Amino acid sequence: MKKSKKSIREIRSGGAVKRPMKKSMKDMAGTVGKAPGTLFHTGGQKTVSPVITLFSYDAASVEHRTLKTLEECRPFMGGERVLWLNIDGLHKLKLIEAAGVMFNLHPLTLEDILHTGLRPKIEDFGSYLFVVVKTLELDPESGEVGEEQLSLVIGKGFVLSFREKPGPLFNPVIARLDNPGTNVRQRGADYLSYVLTDSVVDSYFTILEQFESRIEALDEELTDSVARDALPAMYLLKKELIMLRKSVWPLREIINSIGRSRYQVIDDEETRPFFRDIYDNIVLVIETVETYRDIVIGMYDTWLALANNRMNDIMKVLTIIATVFMPLSFIAGVYGMNFHYMPELESPFGYYAVLGVMGSIFVGMILFFRTRKWF
Amino acid sequence: MKKSKKSIREIRSGGAVKRPMKKSMKDMAGTVGKAPGTLFHTGGQKTVSPVITLFSYDAASVEHRTLKTLEECRPFMGGERVLWLNIDGLHKLKLIEAAGVMFNLHPLTLEDILHTGLRPKIEDFGSYLFVVVKTLELDPESGEVGEEQLSLVIGKGFVLSFREKPGPLFNPVIARLDNPGTNVRQRGADYLSYVLTDSVVDSYFTILEQFESRIEALDEELTDSVARDALPAMYLLKKELIMLRKSVWPLREIINSIGRSRYQVIDDEETRPFFRDIYDNIVLVIETVETYRDIVIGMYDTWLALANNRMNDIMKVLTIIATVFMPLSFIAGVYGMNFHYMPELESPFGYYAVLGVMGSIFVGMILFFRTRKWF
Amino acid sequence: MKKSKKSIREIRSGGAVKRPMKKSMKDMAGTVGKAPGTLFHTGGQKTVSPVITLFSYDAASVEHRTLKTLEECRPFMGGERVLWLNIDGLHKLKLIEAAGVMFNLHPLTLEDILHTGLRPKIEDFGSYLFVVVKTLELDPESGEVGEEQLSLVIGKGFVLSFREKPGPLFNPVIARLDNPGTNVRQRGADYLSYVLTDSVVDSYFTILEQFESRIEALDEELTDSVARDALPAMYLLKKELIMLRKSVWPLREIINSIGRSRYQVIDDEETRPFFRDIYDNIVLVIETVETYRDIVIGMYDTWLALANNRMNDIMKVLTIIATVFMPLSFIAGVYGMNFHYMPELESPFGYYAVLGVMGSIFVGMILFFRTRKWF
Amino acid sequence: MKKSKKSIREIRSGGAVKRPMKKSMKDMAGTVGKAPGTLFHTGGQKTVSPVITLFSYDAASVEHRTLKTLEECRPFMGGERVLWLNIDGLHKLKLIEAAGVMFNLHPLTLEDILHTGLRPKIEDFGSYLFVVVKTLELDPESGEVGEEQLSLVIGKGFVLSFREKPGPLFNPVIARLDNPGTNVRQRGADYLSYVLTDSVVDSYFTILEQFESRIEALDEELTDSVARDALPAMYLLKKELIMLRKSVWPLREIINSIGRSRYQVIDDEETRPFFRDIYDNIVLVIETVETYRDIVIGMYDTWLALANNRMNDIMKVLTIIATVFMPLSFIAGVYGMNFHYMPELESPFGYYAVLGVMGSIFVGMILFFRTRKWF
Amino acid sequence: MKKSKKSIREIRSGGAVKRPMKKSMKDMAGTVGKAPGTLFHTGGQKTVSPVITLFSYDAASVEHRTLKTLEECRPFMGGERVLWLNIDGLHKLKLIEAAGVMFNLHPLTLEDILHTGLRPKIEDFGSYLFVVVKTLELDPESGEVGEEQLSLVIGKGFVLSFREKPGPLFNPVIARLDNPGTNVRQRGADYLSYVLTDSVVDSYFTILEQFESRIEALDEELTDSVARDALPAMYLLKKELIMLRKSVWPLREIINSIGRSRYQVIDDEETRPFFRDIYDNIVLVIETVETYRDIVIGMYDTWLALANNRMNDIMKVLTIIATVFMPLSFIAGVYGMNFHYMPELESPFGYYAVLGVMGSIFVGMILFFRTRKWF
Repeated sequence: MKKSKKSIREIRSGGAVKRPMKKSMKDMAGTVGKAPGTLFHTGGQKTVSPVITLFSYDAASVEHRTLKTLEECRPFMGGERVLWLNIDGLHKLKLIEAAGVMFNLHPLTLEDILHTGLRPKIEDFGSYLFVVVKTLELDPESGEVGEEQLSLVIGKGFVLSFREKPGPLFNPVIARLDNPGTNVRQRGADYLSYVLTDSVVDSYFTILEQFESRIEALDEELTDSVARDALPAMYLLKKELIMLRKSVWPLREIINSIGRSRYQVIDDEETRPFFRDIYDNIVLVIETVETYRDIVIGMYDTWLALANNRMNDIMKVLTIIATVFMPLSFIAGVYGMNFHYMPELESPFGYYAVLGVMGSIFVGMILFFRTRKWF
Repeated sequence: MKKSKKSIREIRSGGAVKRPMKKSMKDMAGTVGKAPGTLFHTGGQKTVSPVITLFSYDAASVEHRTLKTLEECRPFMGGERVLWLNIDGLHKLKLIEAAGVMFNLHPLTLEDILHTGLRPKIEDFGSYLFVVVKTLELDPESGEVGEEQLSLVIGKGFVLSFREKPGPLFNPVIARLDNPGTNVRQRGADYLSYVLTDSVVDSYFTILEQFESRIEALDEELTDSVARDALPAMYLLKKELIMLRKSVWPLREIINSIGRSRYQVIDDEETRPFFRDIYDNIVLVIETVETYRDIVIGMYDTWLALANNRMNDIMKVLTIIATVFMPLSFIAGVYGMNFHYMPELESPFGYYAVLGVMGSIFVGMILFFRTRKWF
Repeated sequence: MKKSKKSIREIRSGGAVKRPMKKSMKDMAGTVGKAPGTLFHTGGQKTVSPVITLFSYDAASVEHRTLKTLEECRPFMGGERVLWLNIDGLHKLKLIEAAGVMFNLHPLTLEDILHTGLRPKIEDFGSYLFVVVKTLELDPESGEVGEEQLSLVIGKGFVLSFREKPGPLFNPVIARLDNPGTNVRQRGADYLSYVLTDSVVDSYFTILEQFESRIEALDEELTDSVARDALPAMYLLKKELIMLRKSVWPLREIINSIGRSRYQVIDDEETRPFFRDIYDNIVLVIETVETYRDIVIGMYDTWLALANNRMNDIMKVLTIIATVFMPLSFIAGVYGMNFHYMPELESPFGYYAVLGVMGSIFVGMILFFRTRKWF
Repeated sequence: MKKSKKSIREIRSGGAVKRPMKKSMKDMAGTVGKAPGTLFHTGGQKTVSPVITLFSYDAASVEHRTLKTLEECRPFMGGERVLWLNIDGLHKLKLIEAAGVMFNLHPLTLEDILHTGLRPKIEDFGSYLFVVVKTLELDPESGEVGEEQLSLVIGKGFVLSFREKPGPLFNPVIARLDNPGTNVRQRGADYLSYVLTDSVVDSYFTILEQFESRIEALDEELTDSVARDALPAMYLLKKELIMLRKSVWPLREIINSIGRSRYQVIDDEETRPFFRDIYDNIVLVIETVETYRDIVIGMYDTWLALANNRMNDIMKVLTIIATVFMPLSFIAGVYGMNFHYMPELESPFGYYAVLGVMGSIFVGMILFFRTRKWF
Repeated sequence: MKKSKKSIREIRSGGAVKRPMKKSMKDMAGTVGKAPGTLFHTGGQKTVSPVITLFSYDAASVEHRTLKTLEECRPFMGGERVLWLNIDGLHKLKLIEAAGVMFNLHPLTLEDILHTGLRPKIEDFGSYLFVVVKTLELDPESGEVGEEQLSLVIGKGFVLSFREKPGPLFNPVIARLDNPGTNVRQRGADYLSYVLTDSVVDSYFTILEQFESRIEALDEELTDSVARDALPAMYLLKKELIMLRKSVWPLREIINSIGRSRYQVIDDEETRPFFRDIYDNIVLVIETVETYRDIVIGMYDTWLALANNRMNDIMKVLTIIATVFMPLSFIAGVYGMNFHYMPELESPFGYYAVLGVMGSIFVGMILFFRTRKWF
């Protein structure tokens, strides 16, 4: 019975969303009273310096460099080749400002890149498309789910991507870029933006798979005897599904908007069908989250009903014992009274008669409970 | 009381959906980091080789063959006759790729045919219409419901259908194709696509019928005494209805889209009214699933209330017994005390007086509970 | 406590929907694998022969006949007078086919007339409008609600109505047709179709009135002592409201469609306002069903809370009794011990002192519970 | 514990909606089988004769009369002045018919004026606008909420209003009409219709204020000890909010329709902004009703949880008492056995040793429960 | 156990919304029967006189004054410079009327400024835009959330803002206005209106942060032993979230309307993108409120389940004790009977044999409960 005293928080092993809720509100609250257009970063102040990665490629060749200063990027701008600049680390405001000047970004875009508690959104600034999405990555060691903000600036011939910290999310994309035979090498910046978005959505399925395993484990556990441990796990699962839905839901309209609307920087014929394909996956993610939530709610109800069953069983045991022994003890009590004149006591068969009566009551009670199917 | 220890999973007799949830997520997660457009099959690797069935027919005659290689199909292409090619088994990537080249399919179409965890969808590629639906088949032996993905490519003069494994779903269609008098023989490939879709939707009703029987059985069981067994059955039913809804819901917009929009390969006058007819059936399926779900939720609530009733009954028995016998035992205890000076003990009528008092208390208690309608 | 063993099904007195659920699914499942366009009737095979009733009227005169064969109807077709042909009984396929040929109906229409498990719907075939609705009739003897399908074919100058079996639903319409002064005699076939639809919607109010009485009876019953019987009644009510909603909901769009769209056979100026009037009633029916459902859910919650109250009361009685008598019995037990050296036993006032202590404990306990307002 | 036997219905003091549910259904059911267009009144047959009040005014002067016959109204028709005719009492069909002839009303309008169980609605008949709303008035004596139907006919230069019985609702409007300086005197019939509608919506706020007081009282009552009485009050509140929503909800689209659409009889520039103002109030009423409902649901849940707490407390008392005294009584019972050879009994310190053991057990148990924070 | 008697209301420490519900209804109800267009203030009658603050600025200079009379404002009207007039305190009707005359406001606007229980809304009067929003401010001392109404009149070259009482909300805006380098100084009145609205929305995040802390505290508290105190906190949180949602929800359409529609006074190119930026924040606030609500509901369910666990634990203790000691006490009772002839009593090993039997029963029971995992 000790286990039941554990706090629900303690049991958060196996994959808790790393307080995305906390982050967003604290970050947003920190902007109160600040002038809009003032640049400042709302994430934690990291000590590592930002990592700038540059790709410049066409079908024939690829240039893959890690830059020390943003200025090194300038020679690659404006040519025929596709330019992808990925910046991991947002705490150097100077760097972001410089990128804003270099690529001619609107002040609101820079502000949004730095506020990491934003709702996913898409904004068309004519010469470029600005997209904010959430990446969810599973920390292989702790099993925790980390939520980060990814900002994409999709222009004619270039893609900028901004993340708070480096992560393995884009590794498969990079591998493909290094390989001359792949699709992404044959096509333009808009296709690259599709590939990056696709890798984000794909990563959601990894998270969903983990959720699925936890649901199955819970399902297995929902037996009459050990279900108690399932309660905090269900609570955590439900809460994380709520948070996940909040992250994923806005993506639906964003991707739909790219797949259906006409944006200057997205090729209508070539690239838009691919975004429509992502859209189907996003809908699948959302529907799966909703389905999981319904299933967890059903599990909770079942848990409650099973607890009810257990309570019924306990009460039955108590009632049977009390109902059988209380009358028997009473009879014993009667013949334990010290009255001077109690004729039964003197009878030589009194004792056996009473034992017989007690036996009959015992058997009668047992039969009565059997009849009512109490055990 | 032993039964209550059984896990809910064990009780899954009588028609469980064969983990469609598991399949979809594991499959999708497997594609993470893969280049879009790379072909690979996400279902299990089957050892049986794929079965290719060819139908080439017009009103006058029908050619019905099982092909060894896809090349055998070539002579039947492009003529006046309708061509239906059904491929059961998706693990031979070469075969699917060959079909893609032969019928000039978009790479995304081939990719979608192979990913068996997709959300049902429709896509218009101009020269053909690509439709993904879920088939639900009841295994006659195990009573389990198996979910498979069916991909349809509807072109001018031909229909391609891809399934993971052979099943009896299309047998009635085949029978009708072999019969020269039937409607399907008189009409084109678009009508054949309607007949195939219709047979899928029809099969849902078989599943619903099974659900209905289970609901009725539960309804019967919801009595005060045996309701305990109903709990896992309700849980399972609710979960399966959630999964079923997820499979069927997207069909609504797909079929509506065929019935209302203008697609090149669907004859507006002749065939579209038939698809509108399917639409009504899909809506009926969805509404029935929702209705069943509401009913199961109502059942669960009632179950809980009945459990409450049972608990009340048990507590009443316990309380009546304790309330009657505790005061009586106390009185017996008093006169079992060993004080040297207790005047009642010496009275010749003391014993009888106490028995009388006890009897009065007993009768009084019983009357009291009767008045309050406790039994 | 015997009552609680009754099954919920047994208690279905006073107006159960006659398994409309069963019917629809079994009927639909029966069509699996059948060629679309093949005519067969999905309702039970009745032995009574179908009843064909013909009305041919204008403002001046009315012809009211029961036909033996459909052929007798031919002389009345195509004239200036309005023709209403009502067929009760769908099991003679020949008859329905003959009507199809005679009035030039689409094969899908004939099919839909015969499938009695359809969802209510409207279809425009240009020369006629095909409407399927559900009629709900209260059997005056058993108090049960029977659901039947009514198919209406509304053409220029004629209305065909098909029902599974005869019923009193149209009697008031017939009475009005026989009366030369009524509106329906002055107007055309489209107005007759309005009158028929209106009588269907009106009949829903009769059903709702019965539901209302049941809700009020339950409301009355929701007292602390007799609420137990309310449980199965609430369950049944909720289930029937779910089924009713499923029958009525689609009518909303059907009637709205007639009231708002332009159909060839419905006079825009004269008859459409009347259908808009029906629409208001349909919405009222749907909102009332939803309201009743909310009320029943509220009742259920209240029932559960009352059961909780009862349990609290029972537990209080038990706890008071145990708390009062257990310490007292313990004291008596102590002085019932047989130790040779127990000084209290020898005191002449020991017995009275112990009785006094016991009395004080008794009074103290009672006061304690009074303070905490336990009784 | 007696209180708990009271029926919920009995406790309906302090403002019950006067069975609006009953009225609507009985009224509508009464029309079954009646020819549409037949005039008959569905409310109760009142004995008081209808009260006809006439206002004819312009900015300069006002004529305020109570008419004996409708004919007296004729001289005021068709002039430049605004005519308002208010009829309280609908049971004289002749009177309504006469008004219909005099103001050239459609038969469906007359029918709807008489059916007092209608859903609020708006209908445009070109020359006039027909609006049906529900008025809710608080009876100052009984505190009950009475629902009545108000029908408004808004024409060019005149407004007709029909109510079932007189009430104080329009008194403030009348006062303003009698005052030459007010806005309503300067403007036309459409503005008068706005003023009348506004007074209806305003009256809803009075009802909401009463609901608010009841919610606050319940909030106050939700303490651990007296919450029991809150249950029927919450049930009643929830039910009345459901009914209120049903009355108010349709108003949203009606008022929106006047404020946004172009109707012949409503001045676009002058009067429509005022209706848009009412719209905001209607939305506020609806949102408040929804909010109250959510709060009451939250209260119910909290009530249940508090009841749970109470039960826990009761069970703890019982368990502590039983756990402490059962072992003690057992020990006393052991030494009350009459075995001839029980060495402890003969020891001179046996009694004190046993008392010591009992004391230790008692203290140990108490400490144990303290540790587990049971009290 | 004393704590449980505390009323939920008493526990409202740490941030209760200051009865916004009460205010709105009482205020609105107070307008019943009043002529629309009659000016009167619905908030409490404050004794402090209103504070009028004037800002007149362009990029070069700023005039910042506290006015004694509204007339002092006149010299600043109509020029090239932006004029911001902020009035804190609405009880001087004369003042509001004078402002209405001076800036040519519609009577409905004046009425709405004074009615402080309004629903947030936007109205376009052509020459100016009228916006009503709710400000939520956290009182730093009491921790309570105060809701006030803020009315904005946005004209060409001027902004009027009306509040019930002074507050620190606009302090950051004022600071920026005093600083010549800021954006707001470079731009027009429409940008100022954006800055004011933005500061309102920003302040919501401060409230949300407080909610978040409370949710986290609750999460921490949801342990088995101390969860009891969490109940009133959850109830209060849920209620406040319901109220918050009611305040924030209408803002969504208001801000969206400014960001998407064309209003005369808002510059399409320059200022509208900023309003679209606010829109994203509003949506984030709303989604966060919904998410918090879902989490609190999940907490409540978990609380109930934990209470259930506690009850199970208590019942187990009771049942184990009773089941162990009742049979033992019975045996002791049997050998405490005073029958003259009971052979066991005379046996020298009787006592030890009985003690042995009792020990076996004790150990058997304990093992039995261990097997069933009761402890």
